[in-house]
Amino acid sequence: MHAENIIFHFPDVLLKAVAGPNLDEKWAESMGIPEYFSDENRVIHDSEIEAVVIAAPSPTHVALIKSCAQNGKHIYCEKPIAFEPEGVMEAIEAIEAAGVLFQVGFNRRFDPSFMRVREIVQSGKIGKTHVIKITNRDPKRPTLAYAGRSGGLFFDFCIHDFDMVRYISGCEIKTVYSAGAVLIDPELENLGDIDTALITLQMTDNSLCVIDVSRETNYGYDQQVEVFGSKGSIRALNTSPTSTILSTAEGVFTDNLHYSFVERYKEAYITELREFFTSVRNQTLPHVTGQDALQAVKIAQAAELSFKKNSPVDVER
Amino acid sequence: MHAENIIFHFPDVLLKAVAGPNLDEKWAESMGIPEYFSDENRVIHDSEIEAVVIAAPSPTHVALIKSCAQNGKHIYCEKPIAFEPEGVMEAIEAIEAAGVLFQVGFNRRFDPSFMRVREIVQSGKIGKTHVIKITNRDPKRPTLAYAGRSGGLFFDFCIHDFDMVRYISGCEIKTVYSAGAVLIDPELENLGDIDTALITLQMTDNSLCVIDVSRETNYGYDQQVEVFGSKGSIRALNTSPTSTILSTAEGVFTDNLHYSFVERYKEAYITELREFFTSVRNQTLPHVTGQDALQAVKIAQAAELSFKKNSPVDVER
Amino acid sequence: MHAENIIFHFPDVLLKAVAGPNLDEKWAESMGIPEYFSDENRVIHDSEIEAVVIAAPSPTHVALIKSCAQNGKHIYCEKPIAFEPEGVMEAIEAIEAAGVLFQVGFNRRFDPSFMRVREIVQSGKIGKTHVIKITNRDPKRPTLAYAGRSGGLFFDFCIHDFDMVRYISGCEIKTVYSAGAVLIDPELENLGDIDTALITLQMTDNSLCVIDVSRETNYGYDQQVEVFGSKGSIRALNTSPTSTILSTAEGVFTDNLHYSFVERYKEAYITELREFFTSVRNQTLPHVTGQDALQAVKIAQAAELSFKKNSPVDVER
Amino acid sequence: MHAENIIFHFPDVLLKAVAGPNLDEKWAESMGIPEYFSDENRVIHDSEIEAVVIAAPSPTHVALIKSCAQNGKHIYCEKPIAFEPEGVMEAIEAIEAAGVLFQVGFNRRFDPSFMRVREIVQSGKIGKTHVIKITNRDPKRPTLAYAGRSGGLFFDFCIHDFDMVRYISGCEIKTVYSAGAVLIDPELENLGDIDTALITLQMTDNSLCVIDVSRETNYGYDQQVEVFGSKGSIRALNTSPTSTILSTAEGVFTDNLHYSFVERYKEAYITELREFFTSVRNQTLPHVTGQDALQAVKIAQAAELSFKKNSPVDVER
Repeated sequence: MHAENIIFHFPDVLLKAVAGPNLDEKWAESMGIPEYFSDENRVIHDSEIEAVVIAAPSPTHVALIKSCAQNGKHIYCEKPIAFEPEGVMEAIEAIEAAGVLFQVGFNRRFDPSFMRVREIVQSGKIGKTHVIKITNRDPKRPTLAYAGRSGGLFFDFCIHDFDMVRYISGCEIKTVYSAGAVLIDPELENLGDIDTALITLQMTDNSLCVIDVSRETNYGYDQQVEVFGSKGSIRALNTSPTSTILSTAEGVFTDNLHYSFVERYKEAYITELREFFTSVRNQTLPHVTGQDALQAVKIAQAAELSFKKNSPVDVER
Repeated sequence: MHAENIIFHFPDVLLKAVAGPNLDEKWAESMGIPEYFSDENRVIHDSEIEAVVIAAPSPTHVALIKSCAQNGKHIYCEKPIAFEPEGVMEAIEAIEAAGVLFQVGFNRRFDPSFMRVREIVQSGKIGKTHVIKITNRDPKRPTLAYAGRSGGLFFDFCIHDFDMVRYISGCEIKTVYSAGAVLIDPELENLGDIDTALITLQMTDNSLCVIDVSRETNYGYDQQVEVFGSKGSIRALNTSPTSTILSTAEGVFTDNLHYSFVERYKEAYITELREFFTSVRNQTLPHVTGQDALQAVKIAQAAELSFKKNSPVDVER
Repeated sequence: MHAENIIFHFPDVLLKAVAGPNLDEKWAESMGIPEYFSDENRVIHDSEIEAVVIAAPSPTHVALIKSCAQNGKHIYCEKPIAFEPEGVMEAIEAIEAAGVLFQVGFNRRFDPSFMRVREIVQSGKIGKTHVIKITNRDPKRPTLAYAGRSGGLFFDFCIHDFDMVRYISGCEIKTVYSAGAVLIDPELENLGDIDTALITLQMTDNSLCVIDVSRETNYGYDQQVEVFGSKGSIRALNTSPTSTILSTAEGVFTDNLHYSFVERYKEAYITELREFFTSVRNQTLPHVTGQDALQAVKIAQAAELSFKKNSPVDVER
Repeated sequence: MHAENIIFHFPDVLLKAVAGPNLDEKWAESMGIPEYFSDENRVIHDSEIEAVVIAAPSPTHVALIKSCAQNGKHIYCEKPIAFEPEGVMEAIEAIEAAGVLFQVGFNRRFDPSFMRVREIVQSGKIGKTHVIKITNRDPKRPTLAYAGRSGGLFFDFCIHDFDMVRYISGCEIKTVYSAGAVLIDPELENLGDIDTALITLQMTDNSLCVIDVSRETNYGYDQQVEVFGSKGSIRALNTSPTSTILSTAEGVFTDNLHYSFVERYKEAYITELREFFTSVRNQTLPHVTGQDALQAVKIAQAAELSFKKNSPVDVER
């Protein structure tokens, strides 16, 4: 997806090469990408390449980041960087030592509705933040194979929400309490994972936050945010492909939700790359930093621990 | 309010008398109520009176219920019956001993939108319940005087939500975790009370529930319910006095929310009395029972304890 | 419906008697109405009766109004008073000669959403009126028998819309152009009637108005109004019994529209009677007058003529 | 806009040159367009150029189309082709004689919501079409200079709506009646133009249609379509940049409408070019043809005549 976004939306950026052990060479050829490899090192050691986009499995992120940084590439990397803070810190150190630019793939920060929510919160129009509510529900459960190597619900899925809370509030998380369950796929239990959770966060400014997540709605991609404050509330509702309403004897239907992240965040994925390429071109820092990646992982770690202990856990800062 | 509802909506019910230490006699006279007293005993011992509606301060409920029951009156009583399960049980015993009918004032069970939510849940259309979300926010904070004698946020305010969870799910609560804060009125802290809370419930069927409550929105009465299940979701949104939309250079405005419980639950208050009078007339049990009142108080007690300990607490059953 | 509204919503009004050739006596008895007759004269000549509500077939209205007026009764009468201006004027003369109060049954003026539309228009918030759009669609076609004696689409059905335009705009109609068709029930053609129409009005202030009407939606009672002005627009959308939204794999459903006038205008029917009884009690003029009834009939007449000639027709004033 | 859309969204299409008497050369240079001219002939006679996009003032369209066709260019041309059917036919003849492909700029056919409306209508889900309603309102009046050379409200502005009716219904227009007024800008009267209109169409299948147009809303770009049929209705509502709702003591605001055609039809403008380039590449006919351009102009002509005569006018076919 990132490759096609570069090809179709950034006529002034040259996608010189793509690489990866499972690369679909026919697709790469059909896209007219000049070079493609199964070995990422061919990209990492290409001195003509200025910047890389890492969209490999999460467990490979830290090593790839270090290698890219040491070879002077600016780096965009998908979330999460790692499943423990130490890994993220290792990556950050390599980035800082090399002096390259770094952006992490918290694409939801670039959704127009969530940007508007943040803008309203920062403007003071709804006063001091009291409660933040985030709904994050996927349309269909992932395969067990994917779930098994994903890092689990908190690291793979909720990581976006942990970042969203920080993005919208401009505030840090003090304590986490997670209630979770296996309600969709009983086999997840064997993997030590869950598919449904309610996560309560207490913020450093005493405001409260709740995140509800699910691996399967069957009705589309349910992505909502509300901030309730001392003077009002701002909500971002779900979005749809059209604005149509059908009324018949069977009922009144509005259009379905966007089905998945591909449709809902289509524009956000392009906007985040624009931010990255602009940063690289102007040598300015991207707005989503390694520290943001680190904090999200620390919260995920506390959330997972809270679920295991069934007790609130402080977030290390 | 209950008196006027009886007068204006139940031509076949005679409101014979009203009583209470702070009764507004001018109002009673203007309403054409045949008798009015400062002493409730005048009502309780009137052998012509078949049924009473108790809308006195919560701490007086148990004694009034016992006295009414012993005098053979059928009883509708506002929530909460008491601030501890023992009080509710005492009331229930008196009711059962006297063989009178009893209904507790969980008016929200009679709201058409929440009734529809329950109906959809019970129909199986959204499958097995996974997550319930309830928003309960008052337009304006109560006076400190009221808050002081109200029993506190969990007993006075959240009690409706605890009942709503049971009503909609048809399921009991296993564990409660409350996160709360004083964000609206710092003076509440001196009363040992809070004004904002996020309460997580784990249900006996392993589903999860979150209730977010606030004593002040400034934008009206925010009352929403969502049930998310294995096959879909059903939500009851806020309601408004009109269906109008105004578009000007200043923006697009939909009508404001109903301002308070008076407007939002106007119909529900009448419907619950209809249920009560029908039960009395037909000698059938009301659908909202003493046991419902008892369970709600047990949950409130666990929720308050959880807040104080900052730790999940099991609900006694 | 009017009788039950009086019984259940006006404890301070005594419904002494109901009368009519097809009166359901069992119903009258079950309602506890003291007297009931097949002959309306028994009511008209009852000197204890102060006011009458006429809900008889339209062709009988003028004679009943005259008779009631001559017997000193205040009169509420359903629309339309007559199918030609002369009949309405005859009724008005009788009313004025007798000095009784008169209100015509333009119930939609008492709908909270349409009242809000008017209020916004009058407030100047949307500037000078440019275009008014009214949608009036019934859920199910009437029987041919009813259609035959109803006066036809323009007199029976659009009469409400002609009044609504005057109510909302506070302005008179200059010219009418009607386009109409038989699209629902081919048999209507034999009765010289139509079931679908688009009526364009040019107002005395040069603003424009369009009314679209249909005898059958199959999806409920579609009742909408929009006023578009020099500074903005105000719309009254359809209303529903609940505020629920159901999302499943089959789609996203909002609640159905109110099904018919009974549900949609339930409150408006009560409010218009409250206006009438208040007028009678205070001896003040009702806001919906005989002149309003007359103007609506004049517009209906012009609209029908325009349809027959397929050409714009000036409204007589 | 078209030039930038080609540059940013069609990496596989080379924008070789732009030309026009008022061309902004700095802009062309900044966009990296290889060649730019003040004389369109430089483009028309460039044998390397396969296809042209004509976005010049309407009165120049016919001559440019003929010249391009004679030089073997495939042609996309903005609406309207001409202000009289003869001009359009002249253009069509030149196109057919040259055997080049031709597409007219009815961009709204490519809006996802209107495409959905058409799809639902064609599917039979709402039965036989009874009434079509189209709202087309611009945010701000054009300059008098623009209005003067635009061809007037019917040709410049309503032409989109005349095409939309044909697109959605798949049916032709029999008769037109136009009611119009100068309500926004009194100076338009001197130009013989109007700024507000209600246009009633009677279709060949006896269904009815109303188009309401205005040159100025002040609240954004109001673009709505409804089709009401024998089994239901389908509506396309306005669209907004975000899905946010702000609730404060001042009211409940949904996001503003998209402000103008630029924002609302952003995607549609790209999709229509995609259709054109695909047609050129595959040598297939575009879906929006010269005949569509011709019919829309014939309807505009009848609509203007109807307004001048204040009487229904048959559309020449």
